[in-house]
Amino acid sequence: MGLTIGVDVGGTKVAAGVVDPAGRIVEKLKRVTPAARADTAVEVIAGVVNELQARHDVDAVGIGTAGFVDQARSTVLFAPNLAWRDEPVKKRVEARIGRPVVVENDANAAAWAEVRRGAARGQQHVVMITVGTGIGAGIVIDGHLYRGRFGSAGEPGHYRVVPDGRLCGCGNRGCWEQYASGNALVAEARDFARREPEAAARLLEIGGGSPDGIDGPAVTRAAREGDMVAIRCFEIIGNWLGAGLADLAAILDPGCFVIGGGVSEAGDLLLKPARAAYENGLTGRSHRKLADVRLAELGPDAGLIGAADLARLG
Amino acid sequence: MGLTIGVDVGGTKVAAGVVDPAGRIVEKLKRVTPAARADTAVEVIAGVVNELQARHDVDAVGIGTAGFVDQARSTVLFAPNLAWRDEPVKKRVEARIGRPVVVENDANAAAWAEVRRGAARGQQHVVMITVGTGIGAGIVIDGHLYRGRFGSAGEPGHYRVVPDGRLCGCGNRGCWEQYASGNALVAEARDFARREPEAAARLLEIGGGSPDGIDGPAVTRAAREGDMVAIRCFEIIGNWLGAGLADLAAILDPGCFVIGGGVSEAGDLLLKPARAAYENGLTGRSHRKLADVRLAELGPDAGLIGAADLARLG
Repeated sequence: MGLTIGVDVGGTKVAAGVVDPAGRIVEKLKRVTPAARADTAVEVIAGVVNELQARHDVDAVGIGTAGFVDQARSTVLFAPNLAWRDEPVKKRVEARIGRPVVVENDANAAAWAEVRRGAARGQQHVVMITVGTGIGAGIVIDGHLYRGRFGSAGEPGHYRVVPDGRLCGCGNRGCWEQYASGNALVAEARDFARREPEAAARLLEIGGGSPDGIDGPAVTRAAREGDMVAIRCFEIIGNWLGAGLADLAAILDPGCFVIGGGVSEAGDLLLKPARAAYENGLTGRSHRKLADVRLAELGPDAGLIGAADLARLG
Repeated sequence: MGLTIGVDVGGTKVAAGVVDPAGRIVEKLKRVTPAARADTAVEVIAGVVNELQARHDVDAVGIGTAGFVDQARSTVLFAPNLAWRDEPVKKRVEARIGRPVVVENDANAAAWAEVRRGAARGQQHVVMITVGTGIGAGIVIDGHLYRGRFGSAGEPGHYRVVPDGRLCGCGNRGCWEQYASGNALVAEARDFARREPEAAARLLEIGGGSPDGIDGPAVTRAAREGDMVAIRCFEIIGNWLGAGLADLAAILDPGCFVIGGGVSEAGDLLLKPARAAYENGLTGRSHRKLADVRLAELGPDAGLIGAADLARLG
């Protein structure tokens, strides 16, 4: 196969790119997602793919999307941020573009990209954690993307780290993503700003004067400037992140963790406390080898590149 | 290959059996393990294997042991209940018996046996949880035993279910096996008996009058008689067990969980609350298929049978 298209479907936008066999993006387009209607999302995807096809000779299309995808990689069972419920995405998009389509969970696609072209090149056993507003994950075992019996593997963002803990969007309480995600980072910073506005003066300033104005990039910026409250916020979620890596290592014993997603752009602000908590929390740590904990290399294009590569592999 | 020998090395005894290609035990022997000395444990294993070899023509030997085994399946890195630390068990036993040896974690061996000959026959994605004094586990993925990058996968007994929770033998706090194991069951029953001796009268009676006399079989017996305190103890650890299965399903999405180990002999007393907590705790439960939760079929011989089968496969 030559060129394929990777599509990354998010809650607010669709990004689509023509990708060559070496994983390079030849052309990329973005469209707003009308998340409210399932039909429209399919039309937007088909439209952007057909626009790219008009200019490039493309063999197949891979779609990475949030939510649960079935084992056959065709139907989206449930996508929290989209209107899809048991939506036959593969069939509906194929009918509109005339090319074979593979559908994959977006975090799985990103993990695949990092193993093929990014931070985990050459590794056979990898867990990638995408720390964005929530936590996504992809698991690679023996060099293959692991999807589980029913296609729903790799959702550690919803394993329980605190019994009766914080309420999660999935309906449960105490899910990991309520403690170690971008949302958790922002909630922590806003809490600080409400309780101790003087200590959080710099955060409030960047946030335009109000706790609710503080967002993820604001916390990262303040922390980079050396602001102690912002640094402490990263330590708190980094601790939760690393404790979760220790749990995943107890179960999966990977050779490498890759940390990606928007929050990972803070680099060592997040990774340093995460590594420390991981090494401190790993069971039997003095009698086993430690997995590397690495930053992702492909940035926000990982999902698109991974989806295109999965389409190529068929 | 024809006959192989499986050896199950525990903290207090060694069981060895000659097993035929259909998984049937032809002859079995037991020996006391002198857990205190690494040398002696190897001698005991070699002795019992050679005794069996004198009567049977055996092609290979599989050893299932508690603790971490390296990726090459030759060295026991750390066995909490034995004296082995970086012990080259494969080499040392092979030198004494003249047959090829494969070393495997005991819970992995048991999981393999249940997939090949027991409750999970025909399943490709299986997690077996051995609920004994602690919690052991084995993971089968795409029909193969999953060992991780460094050989230490499948230790969910030591993932953290309660931050700053109960102290675990591994040195961490809040490990699953402190909440969902036989030790947890007994601790719960003894606590009840201390706090409410009248309500726990039947448990105390079976235990010989003292809380410390209450053991696992005592709790099972009382629960089978309908004793409400004993039933409640099973509900408590069954809840923790099921919550852990939900976490494992979020990560691994297996087709089947097998519950084995001594505590599982209580059957539905344990499985009913575990299934309920699993189904209630699974993220996205209304949009995905549920794994079966089944009782193990092979009982205490599972480790031995699995080790023999792994030796046959080489």
